[in-house]
Amino acid sequence: MEAFEALSLGADHRSITILDQSQLPNRMVYHTATTLEEMTEAIRSLRVRGAPAIGIYAGYCVYVLAQQLSQTCQDIMSIQKQLIHMGEVLIAARPTAVNLPWAVKRMLQKASVCTSVPQLLSCLGEECVTIHQEDMEMCLKISEYGLSLLKEGDGVLTHCNAGPLATSRYGTGQGPFHLAAERGFPLHVYADETRPLLQGARLTAWELKRAGVDVTLICDNMASMVMREGRIQACFVGCDRVAANGDVANKIGTSGVAILAKHYGIPFYVLGPTSTIDLSCPDGEHIPIELRDPEEIRSLWYQEPMAPQDVPCLNPAFDVTDHSLITAIITEKGICRPPFTQSLASLF
Amino acid sequence: MEAFEALSLGADHRSITILDQSQLPNRMVYHTATTLEEMTEAIRSLRVRGAPAIGIYAGYCVYVLAQQLSQTCQDIMSIQKQLIHMGEVLIAARPTAVNLPWAVKRMLQKASVCTSVPQLLSCLGEECVTIHQEDMEMCLKISEYGLSLLKEGDGVLTHCNAGPLATSRYGTGQGPFHLAAERGFPLHVYADETRPLLQGARLTAWELKRAGVDVTLICDNMASMVMREGRIQACFVGCDRVAANGDVANKIGTSGVAILAKHYGIPFYVLGPTSTIDLSCPDGEHIPIELRDPEEIRSLWYQEPMAPQDVPCLNPAFDVTDHSLITAIITEKGICRPPFTQSLASLF
Repeated sequence: MEAFEALSLGADHRSITILDQSQLPNRMVYHTATTLEEMTEAIRSLRVRGAPAIGIYAGYCVYVLAQQLSQTCQDIMSIQKQLIHMGEVLIAARPTAVNLPWAVKRMLQKASVCTSVPQLLSCLGEECVTIHQEDMEMCLKISEYGLSLLKEGDGVLTHCNAGPLATSRYGTGQGPFHLAAERGFPLHVYADETRPLLQGARLTAWELKRAGVDVTLICDNMASMVMREGRIQACFVGCDRVAANGDVANKIGTSGVAILAKHYGIPFYVLGPTSTIDLSCPDGEHIPIELRDPEEIRSLWYQEPMAPQDVPCLNPAFDVTDHSLITAIITEKGICRPPFTQSLASLF
Repeated sequence: MEAFEALSLGADHRSITILDQSQLPNRMVYHTATTLEEMTEAIRSLRVRGAPAIGIYAGYCVYVLAQQLSQTCQDIMSIQKQLIHMGEVLIAARPTAVNLPWAVKRMLQKASVCTSVPQLLSCLGEECVTIHQEDMEMCLKISEYGLSLLKEGDGVLTHCNAGPLATSRYGTGQGPFHLAAERGFPLHVYADETRPLLQGARLTAWELKRAGVDVTLICDNMASMVMREGRIQACFVGCDRVAANGDVANKIGTSGVAILAKHYGIPFYVLGPTSTIDLSCPDGEHIPIELRDPEEIRSLWYQEPMAPQDVPCLNPAFDVTDHSLITAIITEKGICRPPFTQSLASLF
């Protein structure tokens, strides 16, 4: 199981172990959850993060919980009822991650049609592996399409983390770099550190270095300079939500990278599964932006606060990149180019 | 003496005390230097920083050292000779700050024409105050010109620190905000935190909050979003060097802000004294960019390293903003508009 380097199930499938992302890059610590409380804590505390990875993890959790319930109960209806309650608790662990309720509901749907406990365990065991494999296949296709847009020796700028840790394998926005490393296809990746939570510095730089990718870490405000110096031939980023007109919500700072790329004449590519395309959302103005705790800017990570404790901070977690700045949106079904209203709709 | 809140000389003018910028914003600690070693350490360790502030500090240091020498020696030629040596040591403390050698040489030039010790002490005492006052007048004029470009209620984005701490009073890039606060002229300032050394978070946010300016701290990568939301009507930044064609070297990230401002149709203003205009430098390609220690990105400020210890980092301290992105360059002699080749030359 390639997910997040080492997702694995314990003896008799009654526990689940993952690489604890909250400890990276300083420690490779594995986190084992046996109880529902331990599973929800792992999601809430960002030990597992990245929407696809959370969905995959939650799928396996439902299966592990069913295995545990079957140790003391052989009443299929009782187990189904208990799983519904446990699924609600899992979903509540992080209400904004769209893949979490999606995966839990998909597992519960499977459970609901089973008529015996052995059938239920068998069906759920298959379904969580299917969710996992589907994500791997999707990432591989996105990575293939993305890599087809690059040539050997290209410099590519990326933002935040959309690699294997956040998905199953390869990743989305950073999937092409991992595929390139496997194939000995030389690239030079510039990774924005991605303030305030530093996913680029802590996770992307760590993943790419381990994969053997030639990676250089920069602060977010250095992107303009590396572009001006001619180091960047393309920008690759992931996405959290794509509106029908091609406007893209992604990690804060993405729209700035897109504007710089346009200024310097560098193509800007967004990579993500078709499940992030929301045709019911007409444009970026209709995507709500989460505002997070000012302490992430003022004092998180630091030996002592690095700003006055009473200074107001604005801390949006995402921003919206206008479709006019995007060269193409790359999905597992192919590469969409402007006008996006037509090209995105044709995927469905 | 308004410089850096509280530059002051000790009894008999044999020591110099400043607010220690390296301790801000967590502690207001005053640093007193009596020996040449303590003075150079204060410059090297960024207890005093900002090119104009370093120049002013060094001017007073030469005077304080002359006072000390006069306690044990009444031979004018011996004191002049010793001051020349001490001036070299001061200048070597931070070779890149242009105002440091400028101020020391100006003091030594005064000393060189004196024919008695009392005359030397009197001349040097006057000259360091003159350097200080000239900077205050220059900052006030720049601030007046800058403020004339704003209207009440404007939102203004700024980057790094170019306020009172870095100069004598008011500042350059942030001088108009301090002047506005004195006059009850309402503005809303958005301060980029300015990675990796966080001068915006630690110093600008602290200064503006104390001055009663309505300030909001953001991460550098949030500038695009606040502009998109219509919060910004102008950008004001300082400058380290202006080439003859109007290209501007300033803190890393400045050029990115300028490109975003152009994209969103927001005027972008550079503020600095005419001493930073280098007509002998034809354009930005001829300005060398200092590359600093990767540890500033990887581990500085942090409880533990926030990136893999072996990941390469690119850490340029400055970048170049193309003159085509600049609305106007504001000096103590007036506001220069494009074409800058003509408007800058006409200042001299």
